[in-house]
Amino acid sequence: MNGRGLSIDYARLAGRIRELGAVGALEGGGVGRLALSDADRAGRDLLVDWMWALGLDVEIDAIGNIFGWREGAEITAPVMTGSHIDSVRAGGMLDGAYGVLAGLEVVTCLNDHAVTTDKPLVVAAFTNEEGARFHPDMMGSLVHVGGMSLSDALDTRDTAGLRLGDELTRIGYAGGATPGAIKPAAFIELHIEQGPILEAEGIRIGAVEGVQGISWREYVFQGQANHAGTTPMRLRRDAGLAAARLAVAVADIVAEQVGTVGEIEPAPNLVNVVPGRARLTVDLRNTDEARLQEAEARVARAADEIAAAADLGLESRSLARFEPVAFDAAIVDSVARAAEARGHSHRRMPSGAGHDAQMLARIAPAGMIFVPSIAGISHNPAEHTAPEDLEAGANLLLDVMLELAEAP
Amino acid sequence: MNGRGLSIDYARLAGRIRELGAVGALEGGGVGRLALSDADRAGRDLLVDWMWALGLDVEIDAIGNIFGWREGAEITAPVMTGSHIDSVRAGGMLDGAYGVLAGLEVVTCLNDHAVTTDKPLVVAAFTNEEGARFHPDMMGSLVHVGGMSLSDALDTRDTAGLRLGDELTRIGYAGGATPGAIKPAAFIELHIEQGPILEAEGIRIGAVEGVQGISWREYVFQGQANHAGTTPMRLRRDAGLAAARLAVAVADIVAEQVGTVGEIEPAPNLVNVVPGRARLTVDLRNTDEARLQEAEARVARAADEIAAAADLGLESRSLARFEPVAFDAAIVDSVARAAEARGHSHRRMPSGAGHDAQMLARIAPAGMIFVPSIAGISHNPAEHTAPEDLEAGANLLLDVMLELAEAP
Repeated sequence: MNGRGLSIDYARLAGRIRELGAVGALEGGGVGRLALSDADRAGRDLLVDWMWALGLDVEIDAIGNIFGWREGAEITAPVMTGSHIDSVRAGGMLDGAYGVLAGLEVVTCLNDHAVTTDKPLVVAAFTNEEGARFHPDMMGSLVHVGGMSLSDALDTRDTAGLRLGDELTRIGYAGGATPGAIKPAAFIELHIEQGPILEAEGIRIGAVEGVQGISWREYVFQGQANHAGTTPMRLRRDAGLAAARLAVAVADIVAEQVGTVGEIEPAPNLVNVVPGRARLTVDLRNTDEARLQEAEARVARAADEIAAAADLGLESRSLARFEPVAFDAAIVDSVARAAEARGHSHRRMPSGAGHDAQMLARIAPAGMIFVPSIAGISHNPAEHTAPEDLEAGANLLLDVMLELAEAP
Repeated sequence: MNGRGLSIDYARLAGRIRELGAVGALEGGGVGRLALSDADRAGRDLLVDWMWALGLDVEIDAIGNIFGWREGAEITAPVMTGSHIDSVRAGGMLDGAYGVLAGLEVVTCLNDHAVTTDKPLVVAAFTNEEGARFHPDMMGSLVHVGGMSLSDALDTRDTAGLRLGDELTRIGYAGGATPGAIKPAAFIELHIEQGPILEAEGIRIGAVEGVQGISWREYVFQGQANHAGTTPMRLRRDAGLAAARLAVAVADIVAEQVGTVGEIEPAPNLVNVVPGRARLTVDLRNTDEARLQEAEARVARAADEIAAAADLGLESRSLARFEPVAFDAAIVDSVARAAEARGHSHRRMPSGAGHDAQMLARIAPAGMIFVPSIAGISHNPAEHTAPEDLEAGANLLLDVMLELAEAP
């Protein structure tokens, strides 16, 4: 509970979630609001209307990030919350939108009670967090913190060849503000967990300590395609079998962490041909950079050994690599204390997925609040979180934002 | 050496191989003569012209099999040789064609020396042995021996939806003869090994004892697609990992035989998603039916155990199943004796690939002669066999056909 005894109005928050969820709604459930699509524009329009109605100053920057400002008593760096309203091709209505709309609910609550915070508040919606249409993901927040140049971001293209900058102009969200002009005093993002841990442990609130480092690597084994009937086992150079062995090795290596072989592509991929070539991807994540590097080294060694044992060529390349991000200890404490004060079960935990907050952490003290995802399902129309959990998360966002906005 | 002291003319045989190999020749090498394509028609036209020129009676049956008859002294069941002239999409010029043209060379040699055999001789080219365009493979010989009805065969369609019967009529090879009307006294097929065994052992001639039984089975593991970053290993139901484990298990199970996982298809096949579903194929072959069944049972058990351990659903279905075929012991002996007589190194061996001879074995004593495939490469433009090996094989075909045609 915050010092002012305020709580959010869950029915109002749920109404906005449903209303935004109707924009780009898919037949049979779920949301398809790919970044810079017509549905994204309609969602942005709705969000900006709500911001105006709440008396926020709306600022849109050149990469399309939307910021709604609420004045504070002081003219100083704001406390920012936010997330994104773009979705994967067929996602749920909570991923991203929940955090943005909970931010609006915090503002609405403060407006209703005529509360003026010391620091200004900003509710942000960052462009193209999902990366489902334009790569990389977390693009808007990445540009905001200077991790990618504006021109590179505008020049990215989707699979149809459409340029991001052109699409941004087309939907009317190529704003005039300079990306990164706002340096928040603190950043706090509320999000669904997108994993099964909170639900499995019966815990309502995650005080997110950081984001796992990510290592994506592609391995390609090169052997010899041969006839499955006429080639004795000892004379084979089976690249598909090597890929299978590496997939099994990855599971052994990462038993205490997470590691995933998501793609396996033997070639020619025919029932009666020994695969002459096989490609697989290895996704390793860890909250500790040293342990992530150790896992990378062990997987690479396993791949080398498998290739050598089967007389195969081996090539590999990095597809993505991010070091782990540690959130601000004071903000993590603040989330845990706020959960305690409202009597919600909570635990400290890492984020397995990437979030805009990890980008903002480069320029400001940052943190996140997680609420449970039922069955851990995410990026799927079946994504769901219990109403009482959504309400609890939004109240904690209110509490933490008030604390941050009143801090010296 | 045969009793008449005859040998084939390799230059003439090689010339016909080159000439037929030019029909459907691919840029950069190799042959694309898919069954009932325009190239197949052109190849058939050339073959029939050669048969006519050699004075053979040409008979074409309703499934398009071509038979060139050479009269014998007796009116009785003929000794038949043959193979096929269709190819895979990008194959070599020897697979199939070598056996048919060596048969023509035997006839040419006998004509040149005015030899009349006791029994008639028939040189056959069976329709759609490869199965690369219409399924199943070995179709023409299968229909010939009554293993598939003519109407079912004519009603098969290629991936473009074209009906085999229509294509057969289009290229002018829907013949009037009833399939299976010819019951040979014996059948002998000369073919490249399509495997590496003869070359690896430095042996020129394979006396083929039989054809491995084939078991093709598809396994599908069904788990739960999950986020690769947020889903702890213990909560995963990773179907892709299960497929990899089964592929490794197959290699262990079949160490003394052959077994191949040619296709692995995880879904959704994305770098950052734990595969929720994975499909793989298992190709098992053995010359012994009991051992083939044992391998099938062990693979099925491994799949069950892997699925149970990871809480996955499992479905499987047979894609193809042929029991091993044993060739006629007297014909196998005859091939070995003939190789001995000409001073060629030889060994008894199974065929790893399927051949028309295994179908003919259902209705007649049958056998095969193998010559080495360099590096075991087959179904590939790089397919190659040394000239001296091709010559040796054709001479053995002559010797064995003469022996069979003079037998009581």
